[in-house]
Amino acid sequence: MLDFASIDDAVDAQLPNQLDNLKRLCAHPSIAAQNVGMQACAELVAGMLEARGFETSIMPTDGQPVVFGERQGASDRTLLFYNHYDVQPPEPLELWESPPFEPEIRDGKIYGRGVSDDKGHLICRLAALDAILAQQDELPCRVKFIVEGEEEIGSPNLPAFVAQNEDLLGADAWVWEFGGVDHHGRSVQSAGLRGICYVELVARTGTLDAHSGLGGGIFPNAAWRLTWALATLKGPDERIRIPGFYDKVIPPTARDLELLAELPEVADNYKETYGIQDFIKGLSGGLDLHREEVFTPTCTICGLTSGYQGPGTKTVLPAEARAKVDFRLVPDQDPSEVFELLKAHLAHEGFDDIEVQWLGGEPPGRTDPDDPFLQMVVESARSVYGQPQLIEPIAGGSGPVHAFISHLGVPVAAAGIGHPEGRVHAPNENVVIDNFTKGIKHTVRIIMNFAQA
Amino acid sequence: MLDFASIDDAVDAQLPNQLDNLKRLCAHPSIAAQNVGMQACAELVAGMLEARGFETSIMPTDGQPVVFGERQGASDRTLLFYNHYDVQPPEPLELWESPPFEPEIRDGKIYGRGVSDDKGHLICRLAALDAILAQQDELPCRVKFIVEGEEEIGSPNLPAFVAQNEDLLGADAWVWEFGGVDHHGRSVQSAGLRGICYVELVARTGTLDAHSGLGGGIFPNAAWRLTWALATLKGPDERIRIPGFYDKVIPPTARDLELLAELPEVADNYKETYGIQDFIKGLSGGLDLHREEVFTPTCTICGLTSGYQGPGTKTVLPAEARAKVDFRLVPDQDPSEVFELLKAHLAHEGFDDIEVQWLGGEPPGRTDPDDPFLQMVVESARSVYGQPQLIEPIAGGSGPVHAFISHLGVPVAAAGIGHPEGRVHAPNENVVIDNFTKGIKHTVRIIMNFAQA
Repeated sequence: MLDFASIDDAVDAQLPNQLDNLKRLCAHPSIAAQNVGMQACAELVAGMLEARGFETSIMPTDGQPVVFGERQGASDRTLLFYNHYDVQPPEPLELWESPPFEPEIRDGKIYGRGVSDDKGHLICRLAALDAILAQQDELPCRVKFIVEGEEEIGSPNLPAFVAQNEDLLGADAWVWEFGGVDHHGRSVQSAGLRGICYVELVARTGTLDAHSGLGGGIFPNAAWRLTWALATLKGPDERIRIPGFYDKVIPPTARDLELLAELPEVADNYKETYGIQDFIKGLSGGLDLHREEVFTPTCTICGLTSGYQGPGTKTVLPAEARAKVDFRLVPDQDPSEVFELLKAHLAHEGFDDIEVQWLGGEPPGRTDPDDPFLQMVVESARSVYGQPQLIEPIAGGSGPVHAFISHLGVPVAAAGIGHPEGRVHAPNENVVIDNFTKGIKHTVRIIMNFAQA
Repeated sequence: MLDFASIDDAVDAQLPNQLDNLKRLCAHPSIAAQNVGMQACAELVAGMLEARGFETSIMPTDGQPVVFGERQGASDRTLLFYNHYDVQPPEPLELWESPPFEPEIRDGKIYGRGVSDDKGHLICRLAALDAILAQQDELPCRVKFIVEGEEEIGSPNLPAFVAQNEDLLGADAWVWEFGGVDHHGRSVQSAGLRGICYVELVARTGTLDAHSGLGGGIFPNAAWRLTWALATLKGPDERIRIPGFYDKVIPPTARDLELLAELPEVADNYKETYGIQDFIKGLSGGLDLHREEVFTPTCTICGLTSGYQGPGTKTVLPAEARAKVDFRLVPDQDPSEVFELLKAHLAHEGFDDIEVQWLGGEPPGRTDPDDPFLQMVVESARSVYGQPQLIEPIAGGSGPVHAFISHLGVPVAAAGIGHPEGRVHAPNENVVIDNFTKGIKHTVRIIMNFAQA
């Protein structure tokens, strides 16, 4: 068995420096949805890899470039880390306690857009390499990085990139972009990700907003058209009403339910963190809550916009209204099929005036929870967290995991630095610095144990 | 019969100067909904009245101040002009061809926020006084002005102001804040205004936006709650579903329908101006369109806001969603009653979690279309427009006319400078300068004829 004491000492010694690296990376806005700062951030990431002896290239796609890096190691086995350098938009800005792109440490946490999702995870992995290289000149195995720039907008160009670069991306195992601990501080493994179909519904009823006193009784109103169209998608019973939507849903297996049953209770934590009175569907917690959280496909309104939204009143009849809507998909649902079903449903319900724009989609993807690599990652957590990882059979979030699993056929495991109050995608995104340190140490073990297998 | 030739000459001679006055007033933002520039604009208006020999006072209310002005005249009869110095918010700013608060003349029109509603009407009336006073030292009758600052937010403090100042506001007749020509250039008289009840519906389902991958299947979503609540108010059949909503509606009289039947066809003009394909309710034009435009109460979504509204995608589950909704009311509906019916309906439908905020309300109010003062104003238009005014039995818009009619019991007539493409409440609000001139000449006749009656 390997002795990690000296490497752990190096992790601790290098921590201030690694936090500075994280601050430097997060201080650089890189918002794919708004095409802000992308190329420069890709160059910053490539520079960080080169500083650690990686051969890198910034590879073009039809969207944002992908940063690829590779460094040889003592064994012929190859471990590949998938990360992304783009971040979610920081809005609403007024809810941040410190500016989103000026990372700040307060009370044992670091705050800023991207400190967790996903720049913190990238720095965590670089920090693990730094600690290993402080003890030895060579990495124990070949390590590759693929750091894309469109994860937060649904990785529209990644599947083609993966298909075109199968040789370059060849690896024995992948470590996914994120991971972290649950409310009880226990590290969690995700054996897959849900898919997503993200659309924008656009109602246009005219070319000019009208005075509501003039048009209210005679003109079509885009906000009403949108409201009625949305109401056909889902009602308060939470059942999605698009015919065929549930046809390809595979229910959880007995092993899945066994893994879900081992997960700790989260109901009170969720209620406290998000200020929720009651869950939907009459859920109160336990296995039911876990199952609905990840094994049920969803339809979420992510945004609504129409007409006057300022203070006070404006008596206007809007000519345009928009809704951003995402569907989280479970195996074997397919985002392109859901998109077609949605359009057919709206037309059938009399809403063929509603334009349905495709903003992004990814199929769901899973790794066998009993795969040996996954189990090694689970077990490697023991000497860092005091116990092995908990396995959630599939995570609620989405990512381009399907592209890798289907094209490359390798196991994908999760490891990282997140925590349930990390406010990922929301204002005041943060990472607990102790979790950052533990994530580095866990990553050290994953690399060293993987090389020995 | 009075000879208006010399006064009309004065109107023409003074036109450039009056357009400068209009520009000066419109260059001063005064947005009641956003509490921008109000006191300073009240002082500017008071100064304009004082320059014309009026005794003025800026009178406080619980909201924005009211400018009152009075000047004695040759007869004891008193004519009162009601105007307002507040304007609608200028948003969306990007749709203005010239900045909203930098009035600009192009192609025979003047553009800017407030050039029509209502600063242009105020200047029109001052211009009529200037032209009369260019010919004689004395006004032919006593003239009063009441210029309020909260018309665009529903005049919440005007009814109390009127009730408390009945003596000050004593008059034999009132001229309302607006008026104008139809698509055929014919001046239109409005024998009343619909009422309004303006509310904001607020859904709050938590204290923090959540990641849609986490909460989509288990957390309540404010945008969905709002959508479902709105959908209970009205469906695609346009029938408002609030129990009791229609109970107090008085249908149009035979005289009302006779007046409506005299109105010209507007269907094609509306379609062209607003870029509308089809009217709602299967309407195609004619009497049906006129009746639905003004004699049917409405429920209009004026604005929707929730979650992420920027470019691209953000996978967020919103904790708050808001809708601005106005109800246009016909006699004898009452806004306070509608507000209570709305709240009871939402609670009954299972949406007592939706907060209903009162943003403003005014009862409808009407003057007898055959009232002698109204008929004088109608007939005074003949020598300016070539024909008397058309009478619409009630206008689609709203205003605090009820406060005057019920408290003061005087007839209220409309006269002004507007036109159907004036884009009131929308970007590129404008006035045709020829209509501005005609409006001044019509106002001259109203004042002179009123004094002789």
